[in-house]
Formats: sequence, structure tokens, C-alpha cells
Amino acid sequence: MNKKGLLMIISGPSGSGKGTVVEELIKDENFVISVSATTRSPRDYEQDGVHYFFKTVDEFGDMINEGQLLEWAAFCGNYYGTPKAYVEKMLESGKNVILEIEVQGAQQIAEMYPEAVSVFLMPPSKEELIKRLTGRGTEDEITVERRIKRAEEEVELLPKYKFVVINDEVANAVEKIKMIAESEKMRSERYKNMVEAFK
Amino acid sequence: MNKKGLLMIISGPSGSGKGTVVEELIKDENFVISVSATTRSPRDYEQDGVHYFFKTVDEFGDMINEGQLLEWAAFCGNYYGTPKAYVEKMLESGKNVILEIEVQGAQQIAEMYPEAVSVFLMPPSKEELIKRLTGRGTEDEITVERRIKRAEEEVELLPKYKFVVINDEVANAVEKIKMIAESEKMRSERYKNMVEAFK
Repeated sequence: MNKKGLLMIISGPSGSGKGTVVEELIKDENFVISVSATTRSPRDYEQDGVHYFFKTVDEFGDMINEGQLLEWAAFCGNYYGTPKAYVEKMLESGKNVILEIEVQGAQQIAEMYPEAVSVFLMPPSKEELIKRLTGRGTEDEITVERRIKRAEEEVELLPKYKFVVINDEVANAVEKIKMIAESEKMRSERYKNMVEAFK
Repeated sequence: MNKKGLLMIISGPSGSGKGTVVEELIKDENFVISVSATTRSPRDYEQDGVHYFFKTVDEFGDMINEGQLLEWAAFCGNYYGTPKAYVEKMLESGKNVILEIEVQGAQQIAEMYPEAVSVFLMPPSKEELIKRLTGRGTEDEITVERRIKRAEEEVELLPKYKFVVINDEVANAVEKIKMIAESEKMRSERYKNMVEAFK
């Protein structure tokens, strides 16, 4: 039996609440979130290796060139990426590694790692989505409308994911993701060595 | 969201305890076992439509010719088969329909219904398998040895199934099968209509 953890992609449209769900999920010791590498400066409370792996632009460039990143992107003049070595170490130790990423980036990883378990978080209804996106109350109407439009487009990528979890309540959504993980660990590919053991 | 039940194939080698597991599983109202059609005579306690659909040889022949059976086989001079209509009605009503079948028959159905969720029940170890097969104590040594040999061959079909459940304790195995069902119901194919609803 293969005791390796699962690589899990958790994504969903703006307003799906993926941040909150992942935060709750990793309170379970079987799940860890991948720690990203970045070239931006650490904030006061941030620790190297906990919140991010802080790198110079040169170091980050080397990581790209040496194929050490699962994926990377530039954002507001800084680089962000997912270090393979960290993910692999966690998987080997039996932890399920969560990559919480934007809908577009998730697609790239899902194509590179077909064995990854991809989960698309969905708000329960369009009404609820609009309520969540307007409810923050801090943005002007145009920003809110742009966000709704974008969420609608993101929802179209639902069929590209393996699983859909409706986020009606955070606790329910977390429970469902745990069930998916338990079930995916029972895939027969992980038990092939049992055939040998029974000969 | 698609509320149809799942077609679940539960199989496993002789000594895997599939009969007991299925018996426990169907105590949950979300699961039903498919009722077979047969040409053999009903026993005293058996009711038509509950234990079997009792058919004449002519009626059974018509069912075969009209493609009304998912699979069928002859055994000790009688015919046995799985009526499509019953399975379909149960699936439509949202029940997960369990087909508890021998390792070989399970293969045929899995090929005909690639969407079926196939589960291979495994004894926890070869030692335990041998213990279970000899433990019945009613058969002679040759019969037991033949049974062990057959179980070993059946185990080789493990990779053909989607999931493997180790039957260490009946209650655990039942819980695991329920988790697989819950998880498989979250497959994105079942949520495609949500994309339309968010436009």
C-alpha cells in the first residue's frame, strides 16, 4: 500500500471562499499547505520557511532554471512560485499537500500532474455569490461588477476539475474535501503491491 | 446537480467477506442491492421482487433477447441475471445500486459501464485470507487448498478495479465504501448544469 500523501489542488471562483476553507482544512494534521517561494520582502510577522521561502531575484532565477518550481508567476513586480522539493518531502511523509491557487494557475498544474486531485469550490448559488462579492462593502460598484463578471467566467472552468464541492458552510466543505482525500487514497493504483504480497 | 444514484460493483476474492459487508451496507437507506432474475424455483421464504424476480425459462430467454439484462449467466442448470429496468429505476430515485458479483462477472460489467464505481474488497493479509478460508472447518483439505489457489488468482484482478477497500473489520469496510460513494458523487461531471445556472 502506497502511503504517500495526495497532491490536492483547491481552487474556485472569486467568492467561493477557498481561503477560509483551506485555513480550516489544514487544522487537520493530515493536510499541509505548500509554502511558496517569493522575491518580495518579508513582512514583520513573516518567518522564512513558514509563510514563504524568501529568495533573492538571483536565487529565484536559479530555481526556475534548475526546474525546482512546480509553477511560478510574476505579480506586482515580485516573483512567486511553488518549490517542488518542499511539496515532494511533504508527500513522502504522508501529508496531503494543498495547493490553493487561482483558477487559471490551477489548470496548468492539473495538466502537469494528472494524478493531482483537483477540487473546484463553488458558492451554493449565483445569488449567494453576488451577495458575497458585494457584501464586503469596501469597493465601488464598478469593481464589484468586474469581480462578478470574472467569477462568472471562472465558473466555466468547473468541468476541468475532478471534483466539485459546494461551499454552503465552511465546516461542510472541509468535511467533503476530507472525504474526497480518504476516497482517493483507496484508488487501486496505490494497492498494486498487495497483489505481489498475496502470491 | 445530478441526483442519480451510483452503480457500484462490489467484488473481491473468496474470503474477502463481500457478502457480510454488502449486507451491512444496505442497512443504510442510500444503498440498495440489485434484485436478480432467475429461473430457479423459489425457496419457502423467498418472495418475488424481494429476493429474486422469478421467471420461466421462456420469460428469461425473452429478457436476454430484448436486451433487458445487464449481465446473465447459467449456474447449476438455472439462469441468473441482473434486470436493467430495476437497476435504472433505483438509480433514478437516487439510490446507489450495489451489484455484488464474482470477480469475473464484475469485469464484464465494469467494461460495459465505465461510469460504474468498482470496489475490490481485500482481506488484510494473506495469513488472514488463509485463516478465513480454512476456518469454516467444514471442508476437506483439498477443497480448502483449491479455494486458496482460486483466491490468489482472483487477487491478481485488483488493478482492474477503481478502488480497493481492506476488510479488516466489517464496520470499517462499510464506512470506507460509503466514503467512496460520497466522494464519487462530487465528481465534476455531475455538476455541469451549475455552469449554466451561473451565466
